[in-house]
Amino acid sequence: MAKPIAGPEIEKLIQLLAKLPGLGPRSARRAALHLVKRREQLLAPLSAAMDEALRTVTVCSNCGNIDTRDPCTICSDPARDQSTVVVVEDVSDLWALERAKALNAAYHVLGGVLSPLEGVGPEDLSIDRLVERVADGGVKEMVLAVNATVEGQSTAHYIMDRIEGLDVRVTRLAHGVPVGGELDYLDEGTLSAAMRARTSV
Amino acid sequence: MAKPIAGPEIEKLIQLLAKLPGLGPRSARRAALHLVKRREQLLAPLSAAMDEALRTVTVCSNCGNIDTRDPCTICSDPARDQSTVVVVEDVSDLWALERAKALNAAYHVLGGVLSPLEGVGPEDLSIDRLVERVADGGVKEMVLAVNATVEGQSTAHYIMDRIEGLDVRVTRLAHGVPVGGELDYLDEGTLSAAMRARTSV
Repeated sequence: MAKPIAGPEIEKLIQLLAKLPGLGPRSARRAALHLVKRREQLLAPLSAAMDEALRTVTVCSNCGNIDTRDPCTICSDPARDQSTVVVVEDVSDLWALERAKALNAAYHVLGGVLSPLEGVGPEDLSIDRLVERVADGGVKEMVLAVNATVEGQSTAHYIMDRIEGLDVRVTRLAHGVPVGGELDYLDEGTLSAAMRARTSV
Repeated sequence: MAKPIAGPEIEKLIQLLAKLPGLGPRSARRAALHLVKRREQLLAPLSAAMDEALRTVTVCSNCGNIDTRDPCTICSDPARDQSTVVVVEDVSDLWALERAKALNAAYHVLGGVLSPLEGVGPEDLSIDRLVERVADGGVKEMVLAVNATVEGQSTAHYIMDRIEGLDVRVTRLAHGVPVGGELDYLDEGTLSAAMRARTSV
């Protein structure tokens, strides 16, 4: 039974769907079947949405956000505090902060973190553009919202070195107990940071 | 912050991806970002594959399989035993049996199971066509490979009633211990069926 069971068109669809995060080979097969069985309700609209995304989606030349306009919706929003720039590793972090409605500010997407082991240097990230934005003036506060990992923190240090002498306030996200989190499951670093930063009630 | 963070095109893509089995709202967001960040490597080919599937995929008028030709690859394969028809509920079951290389035979996809509670009657399934195939002659064996659920089994009984008097051997899949399965985790029904059907070694 070397012959494929369905046409090569379906096999191709399965292979590509399997490259999406969260879908493995088996669930890609299920997703493909789900799609071809729902031609009009799902396959056609999804295909059109992808064509549309392919045609319109671009990277903001100012902040690195992904949007269908350049400068992006956030950079061109006068209702946002454009003098506060939240520096994130990835667009997914930007989306997460926006979902949390964390701060009505502007962003800067680095596009990764420094990682000598994986050969990611400062030139691979959008750090020059960030320094440029700060040096141009107009940025009063820079929130380093990089992940609390070793790479994230060394990237934060590198950025602080690069903007030394420029007139900008640099802040970072607070460490502490996640809302709804149980103390028993937290690591010692988080617990002692939360204790040091304890607040009056 | 009522305004969307990304263009409506991206939001639309996320909404549609979330309708795929295995992807929830959060993972659809991740998948959409993964796609728009990989325009050329993934978004463009996947979009093309969907267009292609939309254009070519059809349902086999003989057996109900999904393929890009009608009759499907399996129905028109002379190397298969077309006199043995494996009756399955869904195309996903057909694919599963084909992956297992279970039998080099033809299929018949019912498109579901009888379910009075959900208002699924015989006229909603491809049962008339199945009886027609058997009545036309040329089918020597019909393997009822429906799921071992109550609905699957009552569908099997209904089919057996419908083909009564026709010259065809009706079989079903064996019950037993799944390969690699641990006895401790199996239900009593499976265990006693496996014991009754025990074989010499």
